[in-house]
Formats: sequence, structure tokens, C-alpha cells
Amino acid sequence: MNFSSKLLEDAVNEFSKLPGVGQKTALRLVLHLLNKEQEEVNQFGNTFIKLKKEIKNCTICRNISDFSICEICTSHKRDQATICVVEDTRDVMAIENTSQYFGVYHVLGGLISPMDGIGPTDLFIDGLVARVAVGDIKEVILALSPNMEGDTTLFYLYKKLKDFNIPISTIARGIAFGGELEYTDEITLGRSIITRVPYENAMMR
Amino acid sequence: MNFSSKLLEDAVNEFSKLPGVGQKTALRLVLHLLNKEQEEVNQFGNTFIKLKKEIKNCTICRNISDFSICEICTSHKRDQATICVVEDTRDVMAIENTSQYFGVYHVLGGLISPMDGIGPTDLFIDGLVARVAVGDIKEVILALSPNMEGDTTLFYLYKKLKDFNIPISTIARGIAFGGELEYTDEITLGRSIITRVPYENAMMR
Repeated sequence: MNFSSKLLEDAVNEFSKLPGVGQKTALRLVLHLLNKEQEEVNQFGNTFIKLKKEIKNCTICRNISDFSICEICTSHKRDQATICVVEDTRDVMAIENTSQYFGVYHVLGGLISPMDGIGPTDLFIDGLVARVAVGDIKEVILALSPNMEGDTTLFYLYKKLKDFNIPISTIARGIAFGGELEYTDEITLGRSIITRVPYENAMMR
Repeated sequence: MNFSSKLLEDAVNEFSKLPGVGQKTALRLVLHLLNKEQEEVNQFGNTFIKLKKEIKNCTICRNISDFSICEICTSHKRDQATICVVEDTRDVMAIENTSQYFGVYHVLGGLISPMDGIGPTDLFIDGLVARVAVGDIKEVILALSPNMEGDTTLFYLYKKLKDFNIPISTIARGIAFGGELEYTDEITLGRSIITRVPYENAMMR
């Protein structure tokens, strides 16, 4: 692209570094910002700087938080004895949006992925083992994505936790609500037959 | 969305204000930024603040520029007597990318659009008339988008400029290179027959 201005080019390049944003989109976004008042642009820029500077990870569960211990870990309304283990903050938000879970979380910060050079020590697994070792935990739910990295991590966590003699569960896998049986992939459909559940347990309450 | 952090929510909201960016995309972008170093995030934020603070519009052509007169308006290699009138900076960049135009530009800053409350006085039309009135201009090329607003603006500019007795042209409309005749819309195809050009003029050189 031919830029008439170095400043414009710099700004477009900054947006282009974001995932899924190409140069044309970046230019559109920059020109949109240029039409705003200086004050709004300052707010736009400073919000991210402030976020990066002040954001914390909860020392208990490692979820993104404004405080050193997050609101879920300090809440008396949450069941502090049930831990749901997830990959990252997005998964916490997804589960919170269901309004179906009232325990606490543990954010691993990734999944074991030898291909990407991510091993168990790169994740917040020691923190999870330490929480369970304290002894007040009555269930650990492993809510990881159903892919190869998720299954590897699942297996590793199970090995680490099984000696504590507490129930370890994983979220149910099967065909999605509203999904069509004939369009479900063979593996999911096959597994959903093997792991079938009693009718009374399966219906939404 | 349930945010575990006010800072996170603010940052997601700032991205969501951009055109075409929804909350999920915004969250993805914010989490991407959070994985960067503080210095990179500072650079990201400050680039836009600096852009807005320091960017200028060329006093001659109103194109976005780092200086009060842009590089095209000061260039000795450009034909300063041919003015190409465009809607905004993006059009200047698009034409510059063709490497087929060697004159200068005039950026209107929009198109006449009564529906959006944009009248001729909201655009940089006086500046164009003043440039032509000085008398050294030998052609004005109107390169506006072929839609209702573009045609309205075209008609208005033509009325304003015709008394100066200089050639006023518009960019050619017709079927695109690489386009298929049968898929071209009727209006474009019909007009392209009426405004047919001699074979020698039509071929790419």
C-alpha cells in the first residue's frame, strides 16, 4: 500500500499485527479513529496501556482479575470445594454465561502441546495440585476442549490428581442441543452411544 | 458477557466500538494484546494517540499528511496542473496503487448525501473552486464512486466548474477487466454499450 503519511502507516501496521486484521481492515479502523475526537482516541489508546499495566491474575485460580484474588475465589456464594479446570479466561466466561456452574475455577493458561513446545511445567498445574492437596476439595471437573491437546492435558491431570481420592469428572461430550443427528461426525456420534445416559439424567432441567 | 474484570471489560468495549468488531472478536484481540509485553502494548496505544495529535490535512488538497502540505502537492515529478477529485484518502491510495496517474489530488472529505445530512458546504469544494480559479489548471478529473451520492456530487461539481472552461472528465465506467459479460448488471452493461470507445483507445498499454 502507498501511504501518504508515516503516522498513518504506523497506525495501520499496529492494527495489522492483531490476529485476523489485514491491511485494508486496519486502514478502515484507523480512518474511523481519525474521525473521532482527540479525547476519544486518547481513551482508546490508554485503555489498553492501563489494562496491561494494572491487570492481575488471581493468585488462587489464575483467572484475569482486577484484584490479586478474583471475585469468584472470594465469593461466599460460590462452592469453594468444587474446582472447574479450564484452559483460559475465555472458557471461564463461556461457563459463567451458562449460569449452570456455582463452583470455582482453575485456569491452566494453555494446554499441553508438544508440537508448540508447551509442556506441563509451562501451565499452572502445580497450583492445582497444591489446591487439591490442602484437602477441602470435593470434586475436580476437567472442562478442556475435546481435541488432542485437551485429551493429553486431561490424561496428565488425571494422573496427577487420582491419588488424592476425590471425584474427577470431565464435561459431557456428545451431540449438541439443536444439532442434527445425521450431520454429527462419526466419532462424536459413536462415543455418544457408548457413553449414553439414563433418560432422567439427560433432560434439561 | 460476564467479565471477571472491569479493566478487561473496558478494553473489550473500546475494541467493540470499531466498525465490524463484535464482542467476541474484541475479547480475542484484547487477550492477544495481554500476551504482549508492556512496551508493545504502550506502543500500540500511543501510536493512535500520536496519530490523532500530529496528523495534518494538506492545506492544498486536504489529503492526510504528516506535513501541512503533502508530498504529492510539493513533488516536482507530479503534474500540478491536473487535479483528480476524490472522496477520501482511501481513494487517493487506491489510485496511487495503480501507478497510472501522475497529477495531483483534491480530497473532498465525503460525498453530497442529503439522506445523511451532508451538503456541499460540508465538503472541501470551495478549496477546489479556488484552486481552479487561480488559472493554471488544465484538467479536472472527477473520480467519485459510481453511486447516487457520487453522481449527485459529480453533477454539483460540474455546475461549479464548467464556467472555467477547462476540460472536466470522469473516470470511465464499464465492465471490469477480468469480468464476465453475462454476470455484469444491466445498467453497467447497457451504459458500456452506449459509451463504447474506439478499439485503439480501449486496449491496455
